[in-house]
Amino acid sequence: MSTLESPACDPTVRCDDAREARPTRGMSRRDLLRRSGMLVAAGVAASAVRTLPLTAWAEGVAGSTPAAAGAGVRLAGDPTDLPAPIDRSTPKHHDITLTSDEIDGEIEPGVRFSYMTFGGRIPGPMIRVRQGDTVSLTLKHGKGVLPHNIDLHAVYGPGGGAGATLVGPGQSKTITFQARYPGAFIYHCAVAEMLDYHISAGMFGMILVEPPEGLPPVDREFYLGQHEVYTSLPAGSRGDHAFDFDKMAAEDPSYVLLNGEKYALTDGVRGAMRAKVGETVRVFFVNGGPNLTSSFHPIGNVWTRAWRDGAVLGEPARYVQTQTVAPGSCAVLEMELPVPGEVKLVDYALSRVARKGMLGVVRVDGPERPELFRRGA
Amino acid sequence: MSTLESPACDPTVRCDDAREARPTRGMSRRDLLRRSGMLVAAGVAASAVRTLPLTAWAEGVAGSTPAAAGAGVRLAGDPTDLPAPIDRSTPKHHDITLTSDEIDGEIEPGVRFSYMTFGGRIPGPMIRVRQGDTVSLTLKHGKGVLPHNIDLHAVYGPGGGAGATLVGPGQSKTITFQARYPGAFIYHCAVAEMLDYHISAGMFGMILVEPPEGLPPVDREFYLGQHEVYTSLPAGSRGDHAFDFDKMAAEDPSYVLLNGEKYALTDGVRGAMRAKVGETVRVFFVNGGPNLTSSFHPIGNVWTRAWRDGAVLGEPARYVQTQTVAPGSCAVLEMELPVPGEVKLVDYALSRVARKGMLGVVRVDGPERPELFRRGA
Amino acid sequence: MSTLESPACDPTVRCDDAREARPTRGMSRRDLLRRSGMLVAAGVAASAVRTLPLTAWAEGVAGSTPAAAGAGVRLAGDPTDLPAPIDRSTPKHHDITLTSDEIDGEIEPGVRFSYMTFGGRIPGPMIRVRQGDTVSLTLKHGKGVLPHNIDLHAVYGPGGGAGATLVGPGQSKTITFQARYPGAFIYHCAVAEMLDYHISAGMFGMILVEPPEGLPPVDREFYLGQHEVYTSLPAGSRGDHAFDFDKMAAEDPSYVLLNGEKYALTDGVRGAMRAKVGETVRVFFVNGGPNLTSSFHPIGNVWTRAWRDGAVLGEPARYVQTQTVAPGSCAVLEMELPVPGEVKLVDYALSRVARKGMLGVVRVDGPERPELFRRGA
Repeated sequence: MSTLESPACDPTVRCDDAREARPTRGMSRRDLLRRSGMLVAAGVAASAVRTLPLTAWAEGVAGSTPAAAGAGVRLAGDPTDLPAPIDRSTPKHHDITLTSDEIDGEIEPGVRFSYMTFGGRIPGPMIRVRQGDTVSLTLKHGKGVLPHNIDLHAVYGPGGGAGATLVGPGQSKTITFQARYPGAFIYHCAVAEMLDYHISAGMFGMILVEPPEGLPPVDREFYLGQHEVYTSLPAGSRGDHAFDFDKMAAEDPSYVLLNGEKYALTDGVRGAMRAKVGETVRVFFVNGGPNLTSSFHPIGNVWTRAWRDGAVLGEPARYVQTQTVAPGSCAVLEMELPVPGEVKLVDYALSRVARKGMLGVVRVDGPERPELFRRGA
Repeated sequence: MSTLESPACDPTVRCDDAREARPTRGMSRRDLLRRSGMLVAAGVAASAVRTLPLTAWAEGVAGSTPAAAGAGVRLAGDPTDLPAPIDRSTPKHHDITLTSDEIDGEIEPGVRFSYMTFGGRIPGPMIRVRQGDTVSLTLKHGKGVLPHNIDLHAVYGPGGGAGATLVGPGQSKTITFQARYPGAFIYHCAVAEMLDYHISAGMFGMILVEPPEGLPPVDREFYLGQHEVYTSLPAGSRGDHAFDFDKMAAEDPSYVLLNGEKYALTDGVRGAMRAKVGETVRVFFVNGGPNLTSSFHPIGNVWTRAWRDGAVLGEPARYVQTQTVAPGSCAVLEMELPVPGEVKLVDYALSRVARKGMLGVVRVDGPERPELFRRGA
Repeated sequence: MSTLESPACDPTVRCDDAREARPTRGMSRRDLLRRSGMLVAAGVAASAVRTLPLTAWAEGVAGSTPAAAGAGVRLAGDPTDLPAPIDRSTPKHHDITLTSDEIDGEIEPGVRFSYMTFGGRIPGPMIRVRQGDTVSLTLKHGKGVLPHNIDLHAVYGPGGGAGATLVGPGQSKTITFQARYPGAFIYHCAVAEMLDYHISAGMFGMILVEPPEGLPPVDREFYLGQHEVYTSLPAGSRGDHAFDFDKMAAEDPSYVLLNGEKYALTDGVRGAMRAKVGETVRVFFVNGGPNLTSSFHPIGNVWTRAWRDGAVLGEPARYVQTQTVAPGSCAVLEMELPVPGEVKLVDYALSRVARKGMLGVVRVDGPERPELFRRGA
């Protein structure tokens, strides 16, 4: 098993076996494919070792996140709950089901809000396919009463599929599409006249279409989504927050969130992300908006490689401190972790961090590197 | 005429003969130039077949758009009214006249607003020249009483020409400049202290400076401009909307518009754009602002090639779902149309779509491609 | 001295000898290094001729700007006060001290505001090192009473150094780091919960990490910083402006400024920048935010080369009219000056120019070039 890695599991976040299937640094997918005969022979082929979450579809889509015990309904998507890199060199057909779920939850303790989600998590389950694959995607109306649909930016087709997937209570609708072009793309609810409201309530996620040759191998991947919520009360006011359409029209949100809850991905809330000194980490970042551009920055680090706009063809930009990500867009971002400590992920429009909840933490464990950073002269 | 194409003409939008002069797919400008002797001999050279609109200057500038009969004064610029690609390999001198025209119109039915324009249309007439060309540009004060001028981002010169072109009623002023660098550039009114107001009222357009080798041939080109309007009443209130300087200072517009009127380029208003399955379409996009960044996205499609910032040198980004376009900037964007149906062009800051009017439609006709997209499994 | 240049000195801005040490156009750093033996022999080696400002650290950091006589406390950083390009090919250790200084000043005449700064200037002193250099950076608490610290985006380390540099009155703290990756990076105060406030009050600047081969030689460099201020009174109201946290949360500033004061870098205030026809000018631009994205545009010119996001590796974009710069990010921008006159530097979100103070001027002296630009036909 020397070519596969089992990172330490943080008890505050859910770890699934998918992480074990990640190729290690210095080993390309082609290397892995070349070795796959041997791996399969040993019973440890990448696709074989995964224990799938309950509602997840095999390779293509991450599962819903179960609520954390004793901490209210968990809306914040587990950032480590994403499908493993693809290790095929041929096309495949996927059958994927997403559900629309309206769920009452809390943005922060005591701040109640009626969320809408795909699959009970924000961002919605990540879908991962290979360019040229075909997908039969079913949208199933789950909890709740409002009509919903899905527009995937990876789809050539009217409304990105929105028109054909409009569902009310008890309904399911299916579209079939071929993923024709590579990239990291948002999907989102797009019901007429109300699409900004449904997205602000939480209905967005990512579909990643890997190019045929895959993405470069990394040690660890996280899946994160930013969006903003417009409520009738100021941020922090305890009670029931109604949705505020005037604030939305003014693009003046009460909350700006990473993975759907205030400071969700920090210790004491849903738990920080974890990584180790020496690793390269990839972040799949989707900005749902519905309105704000994000200036996404890792405090105490830099995006070593940044595929702007989620456009994975071509060379990434190097050493980008702060990546502009439009609403309705994505970015594929990597950082290296030469030193231990916390890396805080923020929208550098800093009032969104200090006043509105937009913060996540990656805790990096490992030995100090005083020649790179130290207190004192 | 097999190398030239005459697309179907949509009666809801004006088609001019310029479209017939477009080289077809697979035929580069160089191919066209090589064949031009034959074409000229047959009397169908690209520059010969155009029937010029009334106020237009030959190759360099698109004409003003006449008002649509029976639908109020039309301010929305016809997206197909733009100059044909340049098929010269030598420099040329252009004499171009633009007029400043203040026109009372309607943002949507019953919502009256005092527009200011170049040439009675939004965005103003598109100017198209070749790098190295010289231009004598005259700004003629037309309808209205306020002072105006023009700042072109393609000009090396004080104020981009603004100081030398300041005109009041009855005046005309001329500047002469050489187009030294390629790209898609905004031009706009830039009167002191009031430039944001005049732009918000409609005074902006595009000058395209093609590189010597031209742009890659496409099947169809559209010319679109986004800007935002700050008025004293909420969007949708019937009556006379005065300009609201406080809202402008707060960057909180009443309307965000594509080609100057609410939902202008849709069926039932000024008419959708039209294209055919299999075509490649290029969009020349200018963001007048005066303040908002656009996140320009084609719903149900993707920007196959995106020349960010209107910077046409170098390789375009590939498969960009949502293109950030700063105010005071442009983008050259292409999409392929493998399937039929509507492609909706929006600023993905979606409240601007659902609440403020920012939407255009490209209707794509042709056979279904169920292997790429279909309802059902 | 034919390889060195002594530009005309504008009495309204401070010129230091550092400018004389700039390699001329057409001479690469490598050329300069090759010739350095001869230059040193003649006593004119680049690093030898600088007369250092009082508080500056040799090569690495620009000095604080003394207040302009008779014009109130000057907060606006001198745009020509920056370290010279690096002409070493080996790593070096730097000992740099920055002070936090809270200073009561005026945004414009009669508009009083309690600034916070690094070193009494906005943007703070520019630090310039070479990739691979090590830096011992001391933050010394200077004038004022509030706690401060420093987060440098060039640092791999917790908080970019913020946690280890937190200082109160009378304290100094030192961190040591290696500059591992190249680029133009912001540094800023990052005290918990109040970082947006401290940045809005003025606490940000740039650290430039040159790649080993340096940047291409240019004729002149300027150092500029944009940020926005949220005050309790409307822009222009005379009197004491308190800080307004509600306006900051709404991202609705009273002022948007270039180098910290309204129209600071224009004649009649702190003085315009100066350059000559035929020169290539480089602008090091940092956007402190804390919230707004800048659309940075040179009126009457274009960014001939734009290293987006301050990411200096790779090819720059060419002929960018308006550069999007996220808050918490930078850009390295160059323009050529073929014609004389004023180039106005603005955020093209133009209400920030016309209503909120965001404007600087580069006055370009030299002969007219009527073949490029002239009044008349």
